[in-house]
Amino acid sequence: MQLYYTPDISGNIYTLNKEESRHCTKVMRMNCGDIIHLSDGRGCLYEARIIDANPQACCVEIESVEENYEQRGYHLTIALAPTKNIDRTEWFLEKATEIGLDQYIPLECKHSERKTINLDRCNRVVVSALKQSIKAYIPEIAPITKFSDLVSQHFDGDKFIAHCQESDEKRLLRDACTKGSNTLILIGPEGDFSSSEIALAHQYGFKDISLGTARLRTETAGLAACHTIALINQ
Amino acid sequence: MQLYYTPDISGNIYTLNKEESRHCTKVMRMNCGDIIHLSDGRGCLYEARIIDANPQACCVEIESVEENYEQRGYHLTIALAPTKNIDRTEWFLEKATEIGLDQYIPLECKHSERKTINLDRCNRVVVSALKQSIKAYIPEIAPITKFSDLVSQHFDGDKFIAHCQESDEKRLLRDACTKGSNTLILIGPEGDFSSSEIALAHQYGFKDISLGTARLRTETAGLAACHTIALINQ
Repeated sequence: MQLYYTPDISGNIYTLNKEESRHCTKVMRMNCGDIIHLSDGRGCLYEARIIDANPQACCVEIESVEENYEQRGYHLTIALAPTKNIDRTEWFLEKATEIGLDQYIPLECKHSERKTINLDRCNRVVVSALKQSIKAYIPEIAPITKFSDLVSQHFDGDKFIAHCQESDEKRLLRDACTKGSNTLILIGPEGDFSSSEIALAHQYGFKDISLGTARLRTETAGLAACHTIALINQ
Repeated sequence: MQLYYTPDISGNIYTLNKEESRHCTKVMRMNCGDIIHLSDGRGCLYEARIIDANPQACCVEIESVEENYEQRGYHLTIALAPTKNIDRTEWFLEKATEIGLDQYIPLECKHSERKTINLDRCNRVVVSALKQSIKAYIPEIAPITKFSDLVSQHFDGDKFIAHCQESDEKRLLRDACTKGSNTLILIGPEGDFSSSEIALAHQYGFKDISLGTARLRTETAGLAACHTIALINQ
């Protein structure tokens, strides 16, 4: 099944952009009358028939739409400090999109080795993962956010911070999270969160969590958190 | 903490190989009297003192050893068909080493797009992950194995096959696996297992499992299986 990402879809007729038109007609060799699928990234999966196989502007007519396609029964936001090697963060985004993520917030921390991120590249990664894994929901990529700004924002749900420091309060995410809930998880940079960042998170009601005894890289911790929430909701 | 992989360690004195000696003395600037750590990949984590900071042959004396260092209470073998893009399989190996894997068997299936694998490269990936995540156990990398040969081998533990075909018998791995057990999980190639491969696995007592509703790439499915077993054993 060939999926095209069409966030700007509206009405019954849609024209693929130049790149998608070329891919559809030249690479996939689709012709007039053939069926393709479209995703708006907001929960709608469309079945559409090609009415003009123009390699510059392939035009399709919507035949049917499935709303809330494979909607998950929970909402997950992961705020993760971008890794020094950005490939690792992009890898996290690809895999988290496959497994299930609603929002990614690049986090700027005291020990961050990288304080900028290319949002266009991040969006390209999640679009490609959406197409590959046939998803109707695409994770939202937020602008890079300072730790203090993020933790002080209101969030209506479970708020967790995964850090490597000793803590009596630390519970396994597996046991601390609740099925069907709205969850925000903070994952620190290679150098971990600072003690003052952890204290600030506690002030704003974040709970300490552990992902287990194994030492995990930042991006692995992010994916382990994402998969733990998916597993609890299975 | 700087970890060196020393599978050939024996006795109280050890000489790092040329590459590790250079890294230890030139890159890490370690000197005579400094403490480094060694892992034999079979459960022993050593604390050793440098007695000759020779950049060609750095010699250390073992001061203490911790046996069964962070030993997991379960044993996991994942047989996964190497992906067309080998980076994805190597990525799986790195992450599975971080999270916890005992053996990787590259699987040759009917629909495999890749029927060869560079075992030296695989071993380099797991050694580097072992050092980075401070592990005393290294996953064993088996030679590439034909599907029919693998499923017909005796295995003393839970045997699962993760395929995408419809099946009434399919249970979530989360519910089907047992804590503390010896587990073998088969993950198919991009084109999935063939019906005859699935039937053959059933003949040999493999149970159908699902990793959830999300469509996962081969390497993502492998890691999701690995993390599910880790989570059940937390």
